Amino acid sequence: MADPGFSSSDAAGILRVPFFELLERLTRALRQLDFDPENAALCARLFAETTRDGVYSHGLRRFPRFAAMVRSGLVRPNAVPVQTAQCGALERWDGQAGPGNLNAWRSMDRAIALARASGIGCVALANTNHWMRGGTYGWQAAEAGVVGLCWTNTLPNLPPWGGTTPALGNNPLVLAVPRATGPVLLDIAMSQFSYGALEAYHARGELLPVVGGFDAAGELTRDPAAIEAAQRPLPIGFWKGSGLALVLDVIGAALAGGQATCEIAQDPLRESGLTQVFIAIGGAGAFGRNPNEVADAAIRFLQSSQPAAEGMRIRYPGEQTLRLREENLARGIPVDRVAWEELG
Amino acid sequence: MADPGFSSSDAAGILRVPFFELLERLTRALRQLDFDPENAALCARLFAETTRDGVYSHGLRRFPRFAAMVRSGLVRPNAVPVQTAQCGALERWDGQAGPGNLNAWRSMDRAIALARASGIGCVALANTNHWMRGGTYGWQAAEAGVVGLCWTNTLPNLPPWGGTTPALGNNPLVLAVPRATGPVLLDIAMSQFSYGALEAYHARGELLPVVGGFDAAGELTRDPAAIEAAQRPLPIGFWKGSGLALVLDVIGAALAGGQATCEIAQDPLRESGLTQVFIAIGGAGAFGRNPNEVADAAIRFLQSSQPAAEGMRIRYPGEQTLRLREENLARGIPVDRVAWEELG
Repeated sequence: MADPGFSSSDAAGILRVPFFELLERLTRALRQLDFDPENAALCARLFAETTRDGVYSHGLRRFPRFAAMVRSGLVRPNAVPVQTAQCGALERWDGQAGPGNLNAWRSMDRAIALARASGIGCVALANTNHWMRGGTYGWQAAEAGVVGLCWTNTLPNLPPWGGTTPALGNNPLVLAVPRATGPVLLDIAMSQFSYGALEAYHARGELLPVVGGFDAAGELTRDPAAIEAAQRPLPIGFWKGSGLALVLDVIGAALAGGQATCEIAQDPLRESGLTQVFIAIGGAGAFGRNPNEVADAAIRFLQSSQPAAEGMRIRYPGEQTLRLREENLARGIPVDRVAWEELG
Repeated sequence: MADPGFSSSDAAGILRVPFFELLERLTRALRQLDFDPENAALCARLFAETTRDGVYSHGLRRFPRFAAMVRSGLVRPNAVPVQTAQCGALERWDGQAGPGNLNAWRSMDRAIALARASGIGCVALANTNHWMRGGTYGWQAAEAGVVGLCWTNTLPNLPPWGGTTPALGNNPLVLAVPRATGPVLLDIAMSQFSYGALEAYHARGELLPVVGGFDAAGELTRDPAAIEAAQRPLPIGFWKGSGLALVLDVIGAALAGGQATCEIAQDPLRESGLTQVFIAIGGAGAFGRNPNEVADAAIRFLQSSQPAAEGMRIRYPGEQTLRLREENLARGIPVDRVAWEELG
């Protein structure tokens, strides 16, 4: 789900700018942060496309924090991943503390190449940084015509089921299937709502649509402010998401030789040394049925379910991105005026 | 989570029997169903171990329905999977409508062999039957020292988020990491509670511990009977599990050339022609860190979270299975008296 950052009638403080202008300004800002031309161009594109696709929390709005981490030396602008082991179609790479989105892009690119050669390929990446929008690497795989499956760990930001203090990451998980008219693409964190989403609901004075965490008294609640105050967001599926966050973390750290969540600094401004896994499945003869046809049939069936309310549309994962991308390209990409002016 | 089928003070109608006796009786019953000796032995072991491990819903309790499907010809007792395509470390197999647990076991076995040769391997399996306990194949991978990741689709049994009639399978997903003192092993359906679990809570006159679906008025509820009546169980994480169920189904059907959920008969007694995916990651040099150490550190950290209630234990996925296995081996495997006597 795209975060609910902008409505169709934009709030004050929101500008709409042409995509190319956003790309240009981001490239310039990255050059000023000592990114070499190639890295600046790709990094700017990934931030700009994330904003264009409506994932505002990890687009321009996130850029100031990213820039601060480059300035503080935690993110090294021109570091590139180094291969540390190869075991057939499974490879281990060290991200050298490079920019998280560039490292992730290059890792999925390598996993795709392995899949083309071997039907399936996996890159386990240690020592990297926040990958920003996870869906980016799902789109990357789907646009290359392969199935993509990837995840990252994070700093401890999620209490496990049965606990009240953070002992898990929200470890986003991405799965993507290529489809001619737009991939089926899921990009989900293991928390039901991010702190950013809680903040957005809180600011609008709205209740969450479903329970999102516990209040200070330990009761499940839809009140975003109460969850923020108690710092007890909820794992998806209660004990199920709690277990999934743990096992994804352990698989990643073991394969990559990287840090597990328990070893990552519990401070968003010092969150570094992350571990990620990128799996691609595809290449000649990999599909037993055309994924377009399978996806179209599954989506038609999904949307044939009787809606819970009249006129309600049942969405497939990825659908919303296409709609927002189209709207934003037509009307201009919405940016926060302050962040835009700070870009220089 | 094991289903809450038996308490430590067993209800009337429950017998405790030695493991070897359960195994023997199941083997005999399978021989009478025309399973050849090798298939009968493995199939009996998988049913017996599932019961031993406390997953009663898919152990002996499930056997009568399994036997009925063998008798009706939907499950062919001696069919074995046939390879239909190879693409490097990715293979496609046809399950020939054989017993689901045997087909799944053989597919994970093949994925493990591929992983030993290539670091990672994948078997996409079409035309198979219900795999019974999914965790079985996670244990199989973990005991072979590799990471296991597998899923199955099912008949349509889950309304998608925003819909009121089934248009998704509950598509169980299994992830496992080897660990000397017991794997980290997650085995989760995409529904928050199975119909079996709803029935068990209902029979005990208990509310669900958390919301588990919608009532007839469309309100989220903890009342199991109201959810059964409305036939609206809830996907884990609301829209997130709904999306995950869809994308797992599409990936599987496209890779395996098998049926998607929308193509599977919507009748539990005719549920056949399922599609499954088995991925193993491992082999020499596959791990950058010892998975034991990573898992132990992550579990210690998990269990350091401040408990929500004094004395409450925070469990890692797989822990409960070990405890139940130990208890059942010591006290005898609990079986329903009726199902036991029907075994003959």
